Amino acid sequence: MGAKVENVGILAMELYFPSQYVDQIELEKFDEVSTGKYTIGLGQSKMGFCSDREDINSICLTALHRLIEKNNINLHDIGRLEVGTETIIDKSKSVKTFLMTLFAKEGATDIEGIDSTNACYGGTAALFNAVNWVESSSWDGRKAIVVAGDIAVYGKGPARPTGGAGAVAMLIGPDAPLVLDRGVRASYMTHAYDFYKPDLASEFPYVDGKLSIQCYLNALDNCYNLFCKKMRKTDPSFKGLLSLDGMLFHSPYCKLVQKSLARLCFNDFLNAAPEEREAQFPGLSQFSERCLQDTYFDREVEKAFMTYSQELFEEKTKPGLHIARNVGNMYTPSLYGGLVSYLISKSPDQLIGKKFALFSYGSGLASTMYSINICSDMSAGSKLEKLINSLHDTVSLLDKREAVEPVKFSDIMDIRTMNYHTAPYEPSGSIDILFPGTYYLVKIDELRRRTYDRKL
Amino acid sequence: MGAKVENVGILAMELYFPSQYVDQIELEKFDEVSTGKYTIGLGQSKMGFCSDREDINSICLTALHRLIEKNNINLHDIGRLEVGTETIIDKSKSVKTFLMTLFAKEGATDIEGIDSTNACYGGTAALFNAVNWVESSSWDGRKAIVVAGDIAVYGKGPARPTGGAGAVAMLIGPDAPLVLDRGVRASYMTHAYDFYKPDLASEFPYVDGKLSIQCYLNALDNCYNLFCKKMRKTDPSFKGLLSLDGMLFHSPYCKLVQKSLARLCFNDFLNAAPEEREAQFPGLSQFSERCLQDTYFDREVEKAFMTYSQELFEEKTKPGLHIARNVGNMYTPSLYGGLVSYLISKSPDQLIGKKFALFSYGSGLASTMYSINICSDMSAGSKLEKLINSLHDTVSLLDKREAVEPVKFSDIMDIRTMNYHTAPYEPSGSIDILFPGTYYLVKIDELRRRTYDRKL
Repeated sequence: MGAKVENVGILAMELYFPSQYVDQIELEKFDEVSTGKYTIGLGQSKMGFCSDREDINSICLTALHRLIEKNNINLHDIGRLEVGTETIIDKSKSVKTFLMTLFAKEGATDIEGIDSTNACYGGTAALFNAVNWVESSSWDGRKAIVVAGDIAVYGKGPARPTGGAGAVAMLIGPDAPLVLDRGVRASYMTHAYDFYKPDLASEFPYVDGKLSIQCYLNALDNCYNLFCKKMRKTDPSFKGLLSLDGMLFHSPYCKLVQKSLARLCFNDFLNAAPEEREAQFPGLSQFSERCLQDTYFDREVEKAFMTYSQELFEEKTKPGLHIARNVGNMYTPSLYGGLVSYLISKSPDQLIGKKFALFSYGSGLASTMYSINICSDMSAGSKLEKLINSLHDTVSLLDKREAVEPVKFSDIMDIRTMNYHTAPYEPSGSIDILFPGTYYLVKIDELRRRTYDRKL
Repeated sequence: MGAKVENVGILAMELYFPSQYVDQIELEKFDEVSTGKYTIGLGQSKMGFCSDREDINSICLTALHRLIEKNNINLHDIGRLEVGTETIIDKSKSVKTFLMTLFAKEGATDIEGIDSTNACYGGTAALFNAVNWVESSSWDGRKAIVVAGDIAVYGKGPARPTGGAGAVAMLIGPDAPLVLDRGVRASYMTHAYDFYKPDLASEFPYVDGKLSIQCYLNALDNCYNLFCKKMRKTDPSFKGLLSLDGMLFHSPYCKLVQKSLARLCFNDFLNAAPEEREAQFPGLSQFSERCLQDTYFDREVEKAFMTYSQELFEEKTKPGLHIARNVGNMYTPSLYGGLVSYLISKSPDQLIGKKFALFSYGSGLASTMYSINICSDMSAGSKLEKLINSLHDTVSLLDKREAVEPVKFSDIMDIRTMNYHTAPYEPSGSIDILFPGTYYLVKIDELRRRTYDRKL
């Protein structure tokens, strides 16, 4: 391809979340915790979950197949397909190879990309890899697809209400309605044991909750400052949060996202010239001597900047939390559920030409802040209009989900946990409950080979 | 970066293999199998192995640190670092985050890339990702590093002699001595259960040996034909194997590589115009009616084309098998051990301007054939000279390894197997035996957190 490609980004998106959920108010009662612990403390409303009928392969197949169908994608027009996930059910064989079942039967096998892994960051890594490929000399004019999926489950106890499940599939190419800004990706990568999954025989992670929050906020501080610095190289008038129409975050739970937005304001406060602080941040000068490193758990700072940022949160961030609040933590798709939520929260003319930033975080740890510009073509039948209409379609399924009583949810989780590493195995979860078009696990044979079917 | 980057490829390489090995002749006796089963049947000579002192993090750290030291790399000059591996010891936390310990202590944390996973293909995926990044709009002038590492171990039985272990670290950037050809990467990706690791609590894979050979050869057929087609688009005179100075393969064991070279000749034979067949392939016309799909286990075809390709094998492929024969299957680094072997097999002036192809295969399955051109600058102090000299240095360590009796090897394997999933854990393997500069596991604590040290 001789011509330089422009405006590489997301052409189409499809989101999948489970057809059943448990209500967090009900769960508070069932778990006998104080009222509001999950709903206000965590900021969560409903939690989607999968029975033993679904696994990482099936949920990624579901999202991918829907993306292909809805957008009439010719499989021979795809040159790259890759997956981001931390729901590892095989140490060697990638989820991507399962997704190839859709392509190989059409003879479309010349498709680069495999799985990218680091906690919740894998989807973002896959997205960057796809964009880079389109911009590289290897690009041959075809499009890329990125699939990110995860099933987030925790053992009984305080972390369980922070679960969730879902998958996103994104079509990537040039001349996109959602364009990734060039040259401003700001990463922060280091070694930490905040959340990890070293017990390979269990579906549950090891979590150091306090350390995990500290790592997340520290990564956020680092990425935000570097992102702003890179932005100012191309746009000296860039003012951080104030120059952004939206600010989206990976969401382990919604309350942390709200605190994160406040954290960015604290960063802006510290970066402001001392003489301008009082004007821009009235009544906050008492925090002038605080520094980033010492304030990860400073309640005073947190409260002051939560209050200060309330309006900014309502405007720039809260619209991105609709899926996170109603599905829970989807791990790798979480940030992209945020993107979907943000896009459907506004009327089309409110979106044209808007710029927003995204913060992707995966424990262990890998993190990046980057930004997306929405194109200015919102004419009837435009790519942007099609993308948004299709997302409204998808999100409307939230209301068609089935509520499951906590006791039944707990039983289903017990079945998952008990059989996590069992082979041969025939799942017992209901197929009736699944949305049409959902892939499900038929069986695991004695050699642990998995077969799937699709509900029509 | 405004200017278009040219000649992106491998600037420097470092290979790590264990300091101890078991001799395959000794192993044949110990296993009470027929003489030549491993040495002639598999084509293997020695097998490197690690005690419980080394794991995927430590061997990748060793290769990376050596690359940095030997090439005086300024860590702030690295903008991308990624890992390919199928030696998964954590389902969430990437090996890349452990490698960041070297960078983060210098404040170099803005470094993209995480882990890529699909059996032995992960290193190639990481390499392509790194090259694409350099060629993308996200590139900021810094270089990339790709690390591929694996510890290949099998339970007692016929697969055990096909083990091995190693890691490779490669510095990627423009104006490289080893330049990846543009626009000719030919992939074949599909779903197969030939080799996979679904028992997460075990270090050993599930292998369907016969299916695995069929998948490998089928992938090879597909990649080779597509690769030739793409090559002919830019060079209509391209004649496949005859136009290549070297042909390197992922090597599960050396005999399969020899059969693979023969397989390419069979492809060339079938692709030749019928009237030209006899001239180019004397005495083979009887195979004109055979087809690719039916001949994966056709002994007649195999023998005839093994004989036909003997000289081509000696010239183009055997020089790439030195490491594979003497270390064993390194999984993701295997193909790059082949590259190292090939480069040290010739005198510098024999390498200038040469073109060779590489076939990367990962079960499950993901495969690509691509090609590399060696630059024509072999002046004193050139990048190519430095690269090759440094590789001679590394490979000379093969002769400094310690031979371990099969019975002791077996005991060490038993310790690995028994303690694979034990925590807390203190390894018992000898530190004395490790080469200077080797990282080793100090302990695994009760929360399964691993700490490492480096032997000085």
